[in-house]
Amino acid sequence: MENSIQDINQPVAPISSLTGQSIKVFAPATVANVVCGFDVLGFAVNEPGDEVIMRVTGKPGITISKITGDDGRLPLDPAKNTVSVSVQHYLKSVGRTNIGLDIELHKKMPIGSGLGSSSASTVAGLFAIKTLLGDNADPAKLLPFAMKGEEMACGHGHADNVAPALLGGFVLIRSYDPLEVVRLPHPAGLYCTIVFPDVDVPTREAREIIRNKILMKDAVTQWGNIAGLVSGLFMQDIDLMGRSMKDILVEPVRSMLIPDFYRMREMAMELGAVSFGISGSGPSVFAFTKNEDTAKRITQKLQQHLTSLKIGSNTYVSTINDQGPKVL
Amino acid sequence: MENSIQDINQPVAPISSLTGQSIKVFAPATVANVVCGFDVLGFAVNEPGDEVIMRVTGKPGITISKITGDDGRLPLDPAKNTVSVSVQHYLKSVGRTNIGLDIELHKKMPIGSGLGSSSASTVAGLFAIKTLLGDNADPAKLLPFAMKGEEMACGHGHADNVAPALLGGFVLIRSYDPLEVVRLPHPAGLYCTIVFPDVDVPTREAREIIRNKILMKDAVTQWGNIAGLVSGLFMQDIDLMGRSMKDILVEPVRSMLIPDFYRMREMAMELGAVSFGISGSGPSVFAFTKNEDTAKRITQKLQQHLTSLKIGSNTYVSTINDQGPKVL
Repeated sequence: MENSIQDINQPVAPISSLTGQSIKVFAPATVANVVCGFDVLGFAVNEPGDEVIMRVTGKPGITISKITGDDGRLPLDPAKNTVSVSVQHYLKSVGRTNIGLDIELHKKMPIGSGLGSSSASTVAGLFAIKTLLGDNADPAKLLPFAMKGEEMACGHGHADNVAPALLGGFVLIRSYDPLEVVRLPHPAGLYCTIVFPDVDVPTREAREIIRNKILMKDAVTQWGNIAGLVSGLFMQDIDLMGRSMKDILVEPVRSMLIPDFYRMREMAMELGAVSFGISGSGPSVFAFTKNEDTAKRITQKLQQHLTSLKIGSNTYVSTINDQGPKVL
Repeated sequence: MENSIQDINQPVAPISSLTGQSIKVFAPATVANVVCGFDVLGFAVNEPGDEVIMRVTGKPGITISKITGDDGRLPLDPAKNTVSVSVQHYLKSVGRTNIGLDIELHKKMPIGSGLGSSSASTVAGLFAIKTLLGDNADPAKLLPFAMKGEEMACGHGHADNVAPALLGGFVLIRSYDPLEVVRLPHPAGLYCTIVFPDVDVPTREAREIIRNKILMKDAVTQWGNIAGLVSGLFMQDIDLMGRSMKDILVEPVRSMLIPDFYRMREMAMELGAVSFGISGSGPSVFAFTKNEDTAKRITQKLQQHLTSLKIGSNTYVSTINDQGPKVL
């Protein structure tokens, strides 16, 4: 699977010259599945995202000196943290395991939110080391390493969060074997509103409740819709995107884990959303809108509703992130 | 389903002024499914196709005076012929059942070939009456009537042949309920080679052998591929189209009804095809190529191979038909 992408053989700077250098990198949150593209579609947003500060030390090996914003939930042990583990995989592939690195991870989004929290951290770490080493390869080459991090974080090396976090924009994972990703365009003026209801939906469990077998006729409905969504992205047709964003296979099951999902959808659609659905495995939900005002009204209304249910929430309004990770 | 499309209320010419007028219309053969888009994708070719000659008579009602090229297999009874039945549905919707029509149907392609034979005839008939009546509505409005013909021809009112026959080019049936079709672009310089091995594969039976239930993971593979194919069409990327045109759900079953399917695929790919698959429910097979020479070499080789198996065949090499039906 990794042959076509993992062939990183770019010139890299000598380690001795790097000692003491440091870099701060942001990587974006991502919405996987995009309603009808279960496991094969995702996109990145400009807000929220995670930050990694990486410093080249004189002593070989990776340390994690600080993690903030995680309420103590993430491991400082570099053998157990997805950021250090994926960076280690990358270093092996470029023959630089003798480098010394210290990592600070600053979580700027909730963990377990369905917003690609681990992917954002992993991608920030990989982009940091790639930049430090002067590796000019296409960021897509980092994908297999990021997927190793995903495998550790949620037991399944999927790419629908890491690929858009790494490449920005909308990304299709056309195939996992061999791995092939396709960058998709999107309409200008597309806004995304995200609401994270603060309830616990572990990714692993959210995957397990999905049926193994489905009806062929439902699959046909679903691939008509994903083809419609991809067409809408290319045609800059937000309404076609909206009509296509229906999921009769995964959403009916996963929505049970999200407080008042269908009521929230109703509210969002009434306020002018073009579509509404679960972000990744939830519990975050998202809506596309054609302007910022509508997006803001929706987050406000949904947050009020959740508050009335005594559920805390984080909300975000963002355009699509087209850049992927960036040096701050 | 038909509300959004069937609202035909265009001004039409008075019948009295039409008596004696006649028109000859060609409609193209079509390749449904396009390997990974079972029941939702299809495209039209310039060759072969069917012809309908329609004449306005003085006496209300539809007659079929002649059918050629069908070896006597198609009914002359207007209540049983898909062309007259779909035309009748159209006439009802525009309030013109008092018109008198005589139809000649000239089959220019084999019946039961998997090339949308009945669709081509139906679309030619519908386009003929629409043109005679001066109905300037979007041809897409004829789709529900053409689907009535399909329902009669093969027991299932699907649209993946009639939609491209009617609209030309590549067409996505995004949804059946409500009915929505999306016209897709395609790369210039795309050639299609078609080989019809003269064996009998009735559409109805070919549908029945398909599994009702499938694995979710196979469906995910399939929708990654259909999204890839649609992307390739928009990106003018013939190679991406080729990599995406894989079918792990329907082809493994239907290919059993086609003589030496996998050997033919091997031959086509070796000669430079970018993809190879079953056209509709078969037994016709098709390949995409990047030039006419490759397409011709493939048809020649496959025909030779079938001849060595004592199986007769028809072959066609064509570019994509972008026009749909046309007045001859």
